[in-house]
Amino acid sequence: MSRELVVIALGGNAIKQSGERGTTEEQFKNVDTAAEQIAKISMAGYKIVITHGNGPQAGALLIQQEEAGDLVPAQTLTAVGAMTQGQIGWMFQNRLTYHLHKMGKMAPICSIITQVEVSSDDPDFKDPSKPVGPFYTESDAKRFASERGWTVKEAKPGVEKGWRRVVPSPEPISIVEEESINALLVERVIVIAAGGGGIPVEKGKDGSWVGVDAVIDKDRTGFKLSQAIKADKFMILTDVENVYVNFNKPDQKALQEITLDEAQGYLDEGQFLAGSMGPKVEACMRFVKWSGKEAIVTSLDKALDALQGKTGTRIKK
Amino acid sequence: MSRELVVIALGGNAIKQSGERGTTEEQFKNVDTAAEQIAKISMAGYKIVITHGNGPQAGALLIQQEEAGDLVPAQTLTAVGAMTQGQIGWMFQNRLTYHLHKMGKMAPICSIITQVEVSSDDPDFKDPSKPVGPFYTESDAKRFASERGWTVKEAKPGVEKGWRRVVPSPEPISIVEEESINALLVERVIVIAAGGGGIPVEKGKDGSWVGVDAVIDKDRTGFKLSQAIKADKFMILTDVENVYVNFNKPDQKALQEITLDEAQGYLDEGQFLAGSMGPKVEACMRFVKWSGKEAIVTSLDKALDALQGKTGTRIKK
Repeated sequence: MSRELVVIALGGNAIKQSGERGTTEEQFKNVDTAAEQIAKISMAGYKIVITHGNGPQAGALLIQQEEAGDLVPAQTLTAVGAMTQGQIGWMFQNRLTYHLHKMGKMAPICSIITQVEVSSDDPDFKDPSKPVGPFYTESDAKRFASERGWTVKEAKPGVEKGWRRVVPSPEPISIVEEESINALLVERVIVIAAGGGGIPVEKGKDGSWVGVDAVIDKDRTGFKLSQAIKADKFMILTDVENVYVNFNKPDQKALQEITLDEAQGYLDEGQFLAGSMGPKVEACMRFVKWSGKEAIVTSLDKALDALQGKTGTRIKK
Repeated sequence: MSRELVVIALGGNAIKQSGERGTTEEQFKNVDTAAEQIAKISMAGYKIVITHGNGPQAGALLIQQEEAGDLVPAQTLTAVGAMTQGQIGWMFQNRLTYHLHKMGKMAPICSIITQVEVSSDDPDFKDPSKPVGPFYTESDAKRFASERGWTVKEAKPGVEKGWRRVVPSPEPISIVEEESINALLVERVIVIAAGGGGIPVEKGKDGSWVGVDAVIDKDRTGFKLSQAIKADKFMILTDVENVYVNFNKPDQKALQEITLDEAQGYLDEGQFLAGSMGPKVEACMRFVKWSGKEAIVTSLDKALDALQGKTGTRIKK
């Protein structure tokens, strides 16, 4: 029985699937499915830290804030991030408790509101590109840009119509709550942390952690989290069992076990989609380079099999 | 130097003061003031667990949800509670870290999303009375009652105009995340828990914790939390330094140290306002009865003095 410590990074699709409206009930059903798989991993003896995306949940809150206009003040993007950590963390705590209990295990589970350090010297602050919140008309968008200091950009012409607020997506530097997360792991708690890539904060002049309007890539944060807790494995769960090369072509090939050099080669060839599989493979490579250990990309239902070396794309030194 | 464990329950006014709009900036400023006082208590050697109200924050989210109509689905009241735990927990983590650091102390601080067990057999489910969310016209309110299964009531005639949704305010039975909170305390983490009285859940037939649309009184939950962690002291912070008898009358008297019997006598006389000082004194009395130790009602700026027996209303066996 393994006592390895594994960080599991779940995509937004594990919580709100495309085509769904995103009611609390729908989200609970999806989280329940994910929690059952994670409970099996816990039963197999792995120590677990979970991190997750929050795109659809933050998006919904930003739309609600916008629609309420001046009735009640909109909260900052960082506050919205904190809210989604509470919302999603709760759902995981609740469903994991249930599945573990059903499998005969009583394990404390706890989600931690997590801040992640970034630097406003990050080059991404010069040309923000991560869209957040609702779509606007050009004139509204430009008005908000001037009134609220936002950066706004036209959405992908031909694909999406309208304008959106864009924010930087800086590199995560450190996990502020690292010490508390490690304290919980010592006590064998299953921890949910750094949801949505974490709440981005920067060290202010007075030593405060100051919230920064930005969105950190959740897989990059997943690596930083793995580093902070010295994880034995880092696993990113997505909607496919394997990473592919020559995707959707006649010679498409599912990758099983690949080395860092091979992964770098595929990246250089442009085999992985930017903003999709690209950042996942890159985050895994960072983990392997740092730890010398294995990182995995696979689907939720294959997670335990992949940890045991039976499937998934496993990147090794 | 004390190593006593104290539960500090903060009212909503410590986070959003009346007259304020409730922007993130305003709330951070208020939390900063509270955090500075709490940091002083930590520096004096007390181990601390913080719990807090969430009325204004949940209210703002419910209005935003309502205004967004069908654009994105409104989340349940329980999900909104989880969101506010994330939002407020984050602000306390952030400002406490700052003040402790400034005072030369590095202490891990962590907020925990907390579920609290209730029972739908609670008599309050028969006649719900706790208003939540925005005001409606009578016809809208009655339509929502039929469409959404809400209980709605006319607001206080002559004082407030309109109709509101009302939910039960059941007794808290247990703190679901008790084990995780205690694990953190072992590791000397300052814990923020059970915000807004906790997320109300009931044990379902399959063993699941099922969310219940209700609001638990935060001071009652504060007592349950004190019990779960075997606190040495329970302190409720409000906007007055002392509890008064004959309040606003010529013979008004600030209470200093009173016994359980004296407190019961004043309660029976109707000295304390229902929905205001009444529940605070009652929660304190429950703690004293259970622990034989001291419970305190005082104001934020007198918190440390009160813990040291210099001021505040201190209820003893």
